[in-house]
Amino acid sequence: MPIYQAPLRDYQFILSELLSIYDQTELAGFDEIDPELTDAILQGIADFTTDIMLPLNASGDLEGCQLKDGNVITPKGFKEAYQQYIDDGWATLTCDPEYGGQGLPEVIGTFATEMKTATNMAFAMYPGLTHGAYSAIHVHGSDALKQKYLAKLVSGEWTGTMNLTESHAGTDLALLRTKATPVADGKFAISGEKIFISSGDHDLAENIVHLVLAKLPDAPEGVKGISLFAVPKFHVNNDGSLGEANQLCASALEHKMGIHGNSTCVMVFDGAVGELVGEPHQGLKAMFTMMNQARLGVGIQGLGVSDIAYQNALVYAKERIQGRALSGVKQPQQAADSILVHGDVRRMLLSQKSFNEGTRALMGQQALWLDQAERHSDPVKAKQAAALAALFTPIVKGFVTDQGFKACVDAQQIYGGHGYINEWGMEQFVRDIRIAMIYEGTNGVQALDLVGRKLLSDKGATLTLWSDMVKGFIGEHSNNDAMKPYLAGLMDAATDLEKATGFIAQSAAKNPDMIGAASMPYMQLFGISALAWMWARIAATSIAALDAGTDESDFYQAKLNTAEFYMRYWGCQTRSLRKQVEMSSAQIATFDEADF
Amino acid sequence: MPIYQAPLRDYQFILSELLSIYDQTELAGFDEIDPELTDAILQGIADFTTDIMLPLNASGDLEGCQLKDGNVITPKGFKEAYQQYIDDGWATLTCDPEYGGQGLPEVIGTFATEMKTATNMAFAMYPGLTHGAYSAIHVHGSDALKQKYLAKLVSGEWTGTMNLTESHAGTDLALLRTKATPVADGKFAISGEKIFISSGDHDLAENIVHLVLAKLPDAPEGVKGISLFAVPKFHVNNDGSLGEANQLCASALEHKMGIHGNSTCVMVFDGAVGELVGEPHQGLKAMFTMMNQARLGVGIQGLGVSDIAYQNALVYAKERIQGRALSGVKQPQQAADSILVHGDVRRMLLSQKSFNEGTRALMGQQALWLDQAERHSDPVKAKQAAALAALFTPIVKGFVTDQGFKACVDAQQIYGGHGYINEWGMEQFVRDIRIAMIYEGTNGVQALDLVGRKLLSDKGATLTLWSDMVKGFIGEHSNNDAMKPYLAGLMDAATDLEKATGFIAQSAAKNPDMIGAASMPYMQLFGISALAWMWARIAATSIAALDAGTDESDFYQAKLNTAEFYMRYWGCQTRSLRKQVEMSSAQIATFDEADF
Repeated sequence: MPIYQAPLRDYQFILSELLSIYDQTELAGFDEIDPELTDAILQGIADFTTDIMLPLNASGDLEGCQLKDGNVITPKGFKEAYQQYIDDGWATLTCDPEYGGQGLPEVIGTFATEMKTATNMAFAMYPGLTHGAYSAIHVHGSDALKQKYLAKLVSGEWTGTMNLTESHAGTDLALLRTKATPVADGKFAISGEKIFISSGDHDLAENIVHLVLAKLPDAPEGVKGISLFAVPKFHVNNDGSLGEANQLCASALEHKMGIHGNSTCVMVFDGAVGELVGEPHQGLKAMFTMMNQARLGVGIQGLGVSDIAYQNALVYAKERIQGRALSGVKQPQQAADSILVHGDVRRMLLSQKSFNEGTRALMGQQALWLDQAERHSDPVKAKQAAALAALFTPIVKGFVTDQGFKACVDAQQIYGGHGYINEWGMEQFVRDIRIAMIYEGTNGVQALDLVGRKLLSDKGATLTLWSDMVKGFIGEHSNNDAMKPYLAGLMDAATDLEKATGFIAQSAAKNPDMIGAASMPYMQLFGISALAWMWARIAATSIAALDAGTDESDFYQAKLNTAEFYMRYWGCQTRSLRKQVEMSSAQIATFDEADF
Repeated sequence: MPIYQAPLRDYQFILSELLSIYDQTELAGFDEIDPELTDAILQGIADFTTDIMLPLNASGDLEGCQLKDGNVITPKGFKEAYQQYIDDGWATLTCDPEYGGQGLPEVIGTFATEMKTATNMAFAMYPGLTHGAYSAIHVHGSDALKQKYLAKLVSGEWTGTMNLTESHAGTDLALLRTKATPVADGKFAISGEKIFISSGDHDLAENIVHLVLAKLPDAPEGVKGISLFAVPKFHVNNDGSLGEANQLCASALEHKMGIHGNSTCVMVFDGAVGELVGEPHQGLKAMFTMMNQARLGVGIQGLGVSDIAYQNALVYAKERIQGRALSGVKQPQQAADSILVHGDVRRMLLSQKSFNEGTRALMGQQALWLDQAERHSDPVKAKQAAALAALFTPIVKGFVTDQGFKACVDAQQIYGGHGYINEWGMEQFVRDIRIAMIYEGTNGVQALDLVGRKLLSDKGATLTLWSDMVKGFIGEHSNNDAMKPYLAGLMDAATDLEKATGFIAQSAAKNPDMIGAASMPYMQLFGISALAWMWARIAATSIAALDAGTDESDFYQAKLNTAEFYMRYWGCQTRSLRKQVEMSSAQIATFDEADF
């Protein structure tokens, strides 16, 4: 069975040293957190995920979910584990205290999520979806709706789902057909079929709150005619007790490549009664306000699964003996050297490690921006943080899951043939994480969001805000000789990004289809540059700690060595990505359909 | 169910126009082939694979193999399909006429293999392994062994396997423990356990010839102490009839990520009686003489599965409607445009298409080199062709399966959520083809073989042979203005390859571990350059056809457009790969183990 070591020291480093979250006095509620509290919470989650969730990961994959007599049964052990999860209060971390939450910042919740997805992605999706439903109702629901649902969703006693996709309508929700017809008491009867509904039905909780996109009879055409409804599995009486079953069911389980432990359902709503969340026809807006958070959650899956895959590949590389180093025997006491002596195994591991640690820092930064957007006392700064979080959302979702998937494939590769069989768990990581590149908006949609919506819609204002931060950082450290290699790598990446951005801005006027054609290499270029920024900051923080005479010099020196590798290995890719943007976009946009 | 259109026109183009196989009068037996014969054979295989093999691909994956009472049962329909396969004579194509084969060249057999692996990779592995066993005995077996086994292996009445791996010994076969003890009649009793044995047991044929690596009692240490044995499932009487069962069995089926239709077994040999193939202690040499052919076969899997994935993704992209083109509505009669209007979908498809078609041409070239090595009347040219085939073997195996896997992941991505569920077949392609990066030597081993064995062992002589061919081609076409963009792309790639090669040659002296660290980006750089060479040749051939006033100008113009895309999109990557080689190899080689 795969092992897992929660990266607690890395969390401390990021929270305390890199992001200085204990000094964020202008953020409401941050005065209530301190290192002891954070450590205790993260240690608690580390224990729960390692002891309870991890042992159910392989068995959940093997057993999968079953649909019996209209009810979904989750794999053995999931029910008990979920009960303990809510009993321990882990569901409540970042929720509103008014409804029983602990009000902790996103920057802590994000790392809790990383450990959950690393150890059992399929299981983690049940509370993950619940949190999404909680957020939608919390931000957009009426007071009555909040009173009805929030406390139960916060505690985890009830779970939630998102019902968006229909078989013919995925990316393009304007096409959806599910109907909402007004009935008595201001309620609506929902009818239609939804597919790919994660956690759609299960036996973990006594009720499920389905958030469903549907069209009202007077709906305008297109995406401006979609409304959001809260539709419970069981009706809720006025006293909060459960009433009769609603007119909905899971008609089938999807047969998937991975995440078998999560019940991905086809949901049929047959006049199921629900209530409007937010304004009529504003359903997509309601969904989109949660998007930055939800997409961060998917990105975290990319990181979490990539990290556990790395941890296991490293253990295997140290233990597996096979062949000898090219430079001569390294472990003469053994019949062969460990495969960690082989350059290509080292290359794969270093690529994964530098990606994971850089990404973890970026995830922390992104979560902190979300916290600042919500909690900063200065509305200008809150707005800037919201804009930065929006700009980086496609990066933390699209770039991170693309590269996280590749990292898992590399980790599997280190196991050779053993990586291809179920027994070692590596092939499950690859199958599970593959979905993260697809759901919550495919990565192609993320790339288009980055280029079409985030870059061009504000004429690059937010990008400039960020690149000024990068330039400011470079200026601040330019007199420090120790920082030179890291600053050089960061500058190279930033230059390529700037040029590619300029090209795209010009292309937009010439032929808008070029934007789509350029979007994916551009997103990868942006992502590599973003991690270069994080690694340069990690280097600066580590140099400062070493200069101050830390007694953990090994930790900081390893960070510096990894930062150097990142700049040398990942940094080399920005030039080609920029060239792809510049060289191929026009031809891609205009390639004759008959020639495919 | 996925569709498949055998790329017959492309085969004609490659065989007749690009490689001019009908003019290879110096190759023994090539005078017997003509376009009519080739077309008939390839059409026959196209029909068989599309009508018989393809319909069993998804069901074979779903059902898998079962081990019952010590015997493996293949999925429903496999037995009948296999019987038809041998009845139709498809097993015999490239085999020696002395044993009932048709003696056709590898360059035709290779494309037959492509269609088989495209439509049903798991099924195709049964005859694939058989062909490997045939080759080993054909090249290294005694006359008695040939008489005993070859005719049955050629006809496909009996099948074959390769038993190399043990649980602790994969890449490093020197570690293997299976023992061979002399018994009566010059035979040997084989004892040991082998894992990951493709087609290890099944119900398709009445006998199975296991080729098993084992150590004789007097074996020297290491890889020079390994012998190869032919060990039949059922003993063969002197009259050719089958005798008693041998002391061996499939003790378990491996639980794998994919290729479920192939019976991958744990094989236990418990004093099973077998005969030596070749000389004692020369077993690895015997295996390695087949390696160029076997690795080409695995590379063909990368191409075949990538191509069927592309074909289906293209159909889906044309039929699936979702959203509108950024440049405005393209299909106003529909509620949305087909997703082929979206730049990133086009980018993925063009990346796959240009990879597939370029790779198909390269596979043809590689197979022709193998034919030349075996059949050329001029021994110098035969030797050169053998050296070139050896140099390119890691490319056609390692580079092609790495990129073929990525192409399948992209094809799956085009389906969005539908790509993640079993129903559409795309996720199976990804799971199936993943093994090709691992077996027959992991791709890391391929990269090391390229850099350590192929490049450095002859001090670059074979590489120079090839780069002189490239330079000769460039010189030959440098006065043709129409060829300019293609020659420029080829020259850029060749320059990066030359510089990276120089760097590696210098590194080898400084620190041999740098070779391993540099090997993977170097192999990718080499592969992209090799395809640039093929695309430049395809462009030259297409320009000539257009200049000659072909009545298929659409076909040739599409080739030119795809060649242009290849140079623009893939060509951009060589610079970064060279930089990775130069910038990161030293650090990877020396990175402190404690810092991982």
